[in-house]
Amino acid sequence: MMKITNLAQPVTIAAQGSFFSGGSVIKTEGEYELHSKDNPIGQTLHGDHAYVFYQIPEKAKKYPIVFLHGHGQSGKTWETTPDGREGFQTIFLRKGYGVCVLDQPRRGRASLGTEGTNINASPNDIYAVNSLFRLGIWPDYFDTLQFDKSEETYDQFCRWQAPNTGPFDMTVVSDGVAAALTDIGDNIFVTHSMGGGVGWMAASKSKNCKGIISYEPGSNFVFPEGEVPEPLPSSHEPLKGVGIPMERYEALTKMPIVIYYGDNIPESWCEYPGIDAWRVRLDMAYIFAETINRHGGDCQVVYLPKDQGIKGNTHFPFADLNNSAIADLMEGFLKEKKLDIV
Amino acid sequence: MMKITNLAQPVTIAAQGSFFSGGSVIKTEGEYELHSKDNPIGQTLHGDHAYVFYQIPEKAKKYPIVFLHGHGQSGKTWETTPDGREGFQTIFLRKGYGVCVLDQPRRGRASLGTEGTNINASPNDIYAVNSLFRLGIWPDYFDTLQFDKSEETYDQFCRWQAPNTGPFDMTVVSDGVAAALTDIGDNIFVTHSMGGGVGWMAASKSKNCKGIISYEPGSNFVFPEGEVPEPLPSSHEPLKGVGIPMERYEALTKMPIVIYYGDNIPESWCEYPGIDAWRVRLDMAYIFAETINRHGGDCQVVYLPKDQGIKGNTHFPFADLNNSAIADLMEGFLKEKKLDIV
Repeated sequence: MMKITNLAQPVTIAAQGSFFSGGSVIKTEGEYELHSKDNPIGQTLHGDHAYVFYQIPEKAKKYPIVFLHGHGQSGKTWETTPDGREGFQTIFLRKGYGVCVLDQPRRGRASLGTEGTNINASPNDIYAVNSLFRLGIWPDYFDTLQFDKSEETYDQFCRWQAPNTGPFDMTVVSDGVAAALTDIGDNIFVTHSMGGGVGWMAASKSKNCKGIISYEPGSNFVFPEGEVPEPLPSSHEPLKGVGIPMERYEALTKMPIVIYYGDNIPESWCEYPGIDAWRVRLDMAYIFAETINRHGGDCQVVYLPKDQGIKGNTHFPFADLNNSAIADLMEGFLKEKKLDIV
Repeated sequence: MMKITNLAQPVTIAAQGSFFSGGSVIKTEGEYELHSKDNPIGQTLHGDHAYVFYQIPEKAKKYPIVFLHGHGQSGKTWETTPDGREGFQTIFLRKGYGVCVLDQPRRGRASLGTEGTNINASPNDIYAVNSLFRLGIWPDYFDTLQFDKSEETYDQFCRWQAPNTGPFDMTVVSDGVAAALTDIGDNIFVTHSMGGGVGWMAASKSKNCKGIISYEPGSNFVFPEGEVPEPLPSSHEPLKGVGIPMERYEALTKMPIVIYYGDNIPESWCEYPGIDAWRVRLDMAYIFAETINRHGGDCQVVYLPKDQGIKGNTHFPFADLNNSAIADLMEGFLKEKKLDIV
């Protein structure tokens, strides 16, 4: 049973609240009849917005941090860890940053979309949680693993998942997230997994992003049109890059970017798709960084075990047992890039 | 455009985080094949939990307040108001109470359910927001109305809605909410609209509920089996009570309960179902309170315009322009019932 747990130290907050950003409005033709109930004739629907929950500490640093979750997740990603400790939302609040936690359009508290869908409650814990989130080669755990192996922690972690409540549409989702970045104002943008791909798109559409920290970005690495690399073959599926116009791509060459990956990513072809996916994503991240830097940008890939000697991280380094060290590493990056100014 | 807004005064928090409560696990028979991807064979799904986001201030009062939203809403209900001011989450945090904001099973961040569903993105703003939320007789607003009539406020308010991500099942939903009440420990329970009905059920299943404040409860008023009143006819639909076993009903007779309704509820039959629904819900609330009290309980109905001279409230009194006065009224109830102890 999870419980209310005190913070390591109290935090004084000067602002807190939530709002919706972006989105669209659809309307059914005709004239609404007040005697009717759920007849859509003549009615509107407001959907496809992003949800933002913000907290600003007293004497906050200049740039708040915006946190975007990944595929099949919600803003919960950044709150309490699966084993009940402080997540990045609270850790960075105490480090003096404003924190803004997003639910992307058609997910979580932003689940009202303008297109319907079918939700299939299909069991997928082993594929999604054990394999894609890299706890181990099921039924085993990896030997070196920063994840609490108790039943309760696993139970909580499985429940972090949240289905799409409408078709996944990259334009809709990245427009909603870009609107949130703009509403929040100048910011530091932290993304995870598929949120990495959404994040490249959103950051290329907003003027307010001052730097990006991406944890384990997955699909939708962006490249200038005409410079998209060949797909990388994998037992998961071939990983493709996505081309965007140079005038949008350029935004990504004008801010510092760091990409972190956890441990236990195979060095060569792995027959298990949930694991092999990460081999080609890490490979693509290096091509992505190299392309950004060739265009005058500042992008680095940090593979934690190789570059920092930090072992055992899963697909969620910021929520792992060593997430305090992972936060310190990110804080160091913010200092180095002068994104920690007051 | 909504913005980050400072609190009236800073608040120091001693604890903050989130977790999932209750829920179940389903499994597809067979043996999982590691080479497969989303094949459910041999896999589990953890669903039907409630989501809890908690904040505890320094020197908190003994009982935290648990907030449960209504039909088609999420925990967003209790955060910032549609016009961008502090909601009850923050108001009561500053009044010294711990605050726990729930998303019920199959909604919002608790959207992973064990049964699938079809989501239809069907326009319904006039019926749901203008009529059921009692802004007016569309296209007019009520003459006396505690709701900001700007376009932006209406836009935000429409976006508060969130669909069910699985079939609405009262047992599943009230079990998840009851598990949250138990995980949180002794508490004050605040419900809204359909959350009122979920709340009577959940409170009758948990030992930890010390008092209930219900804003505009709608369907599913509970009664002892054999004492369910006749359905109340309405142009909306006949409003039925629900019978539960006396051993569970008794829990509701052992705690103070107050029920608040806003303004502009018709006194006699109204041909518009979105408005008339509230006439019979208010009537049923009086029968509910009378039944509780006949069984030795302590339940009162406060119809704000009649009993307090507070005019113009919508279906969301705690989010209306006068929500600070509405909060003071609730605080007075907590003091009177000695639920404000430290």
